[in-house]
Amino acid sequence: MRFAVFGTGIVGQTIAHKLVSLGHEVAMGTRDPEATLARTEPDGYGNPPLSQWLAERPSVQLMAYADAAAFGEAAVNTTAGNGSLQALEAAGAGNLAGKVLIDIANPLDFSQGMPPALNPVNTDSLGEQIQRAFPETRVVKTLNTMNAAIMVDPSLVPGQHNAFVSGNDAEAKAFVVERLVEFGWPREAVIDLGDISTARGTEMLLPVWLRLWGALGHADFNFHIAVA
Amino acid sequence: MRFAVFGTGIVGQTIAHKLVSLGHEVAMGTRDPEATLARTEPDGYGNPPLSQWLAERPSVQLMAYADAAAFGEAAVNTTAGNGSLQALEAAGAGNLAGKVLIDIANPLDFSQGMPPALNPVNTDSLGEQIQRAFPETRVVKTLNTMNAAIMVDPSLVPGQHNAFVSGNDAEAKAFVVERLVEFGWPREAVIDLGDISTARGTEMLLPVWLRLWGALGHADFNFHIAVA
Repeated sequence: MRFAVFGTGIVGQTIAHKLVSLGHEVAMGTRDPEATLARTEPDGYGNPPLSQWLAERPSVQLMAYADAAAFGEAAVNTTAGNGSLQALEAAGAGNLAGKVLIDIANPLDFSQGMPPALNPVNTDSLGEQIQRAFPETRVVKTLNTMNAAIMVDPSLVPGQHNAFVSGNDAEAKAFVVERLVEFGWPREAVIDLGDISTARGTEMLLPVWLRLWGALGHADFNFHIAVA
Repeated sequence: MRFAVFGTGIVGQTIAHKLVSLGHEVAMGTRDPEATLARTEPDGYGNPPLSQWLAERPSVQLMAYADAAAFGEAAVNTTAGNGSLQALEAAGAGNLAGKVLIDIANPLDFSQGMPPALNPVNTDSLGEQIQRAFPETRVVKTLNTMNAAIMVDPSLVPGQHNAFVSGNDAEAKAFVVERLVEFGWPREAVIDLGDISTARGTEMLLPVWLRLWGALGHADFNFHIAVA
């Protein structure tokens, strides 16, 4: 199946790599592919430049957002949350119409320093903002509550732990659950929280996630809902 | 040991009952003890009136906030979050000075309907508001992320799950961990998130907690942090 993966950061790379390894076709979408490919320095975290990453994965194509969106039969949003709406506007409502959009982004605002604030919060969520802006697209929020490596390899964390899905379209959620199962998630580990407004809940997990990262000293953990 | 338990709702009753069953002395604090005792009708949830609950537990005394605060060597805040600061002001800074205050409240705002919003959020928390308002008191936020019954009987939920502590005073946190162990929590199930500002993280768990309650259809669950 053909996927557009919007965003070229560590989450985008991780998801794109996994999709390709499963036999899917992937176009990574970015604002300016030429500028992205021209970068030859490691990024701020010391990761190799995307050109090198792409050279090692010739089946992944880098495209402008709109071209990637047109290529994909479904799409994944891994852009930084504060730029997601702009990126998706560049992708184009027409190119995304009728398609499932898996939204992994969190609306973190780093402008006031660390820890980042969430914006929106409480009465709205990034997932809902995207669904409202793209009413023809079937938005499903998932995987935004864990480190990228765990998203595509839940066995990195032993024992039971969960992925959440939020969305208005039952068929789209079922499609996403199949992708999670493909990623290695036990079907029973996926909790359907309800409609897209429940993304408020999972996005609001980020503050405690960041504090747990600090307290544990690493990000190799995930939320598990222990149920009686 | 003598405890003040502020608040007479289900959380206050549950904590007071557990403390008494462990051999501690408990004064429940409320705004107007006579008015509380005069109520003979079940509350809005169908629970029996507090007078009946107290009649079955003669060792628990009901007092005005200030008298309960003076009685307690330590205190527990189980009042509704939007009234906690007012309740604690009535308890009196002098009566609480130097004491550990275990804060279980969540700043839920039901004024705009369901689901409630959190206020404050992001850059502040109820735990920090209380610590700022009562600088001589050693505030420890804990147990605000689960149903009352589970707070004092974690075995109600099988398998591993966690309680969090947030606070500025290491000795106060150690005291609270001992109380959690007394309540039945395995010591290793208690995660020290750091200073009281980390209460932002646990208070912001409430929105997803409420959505999980809806999705699961019951409140007999708790958060577990699965760690690699």
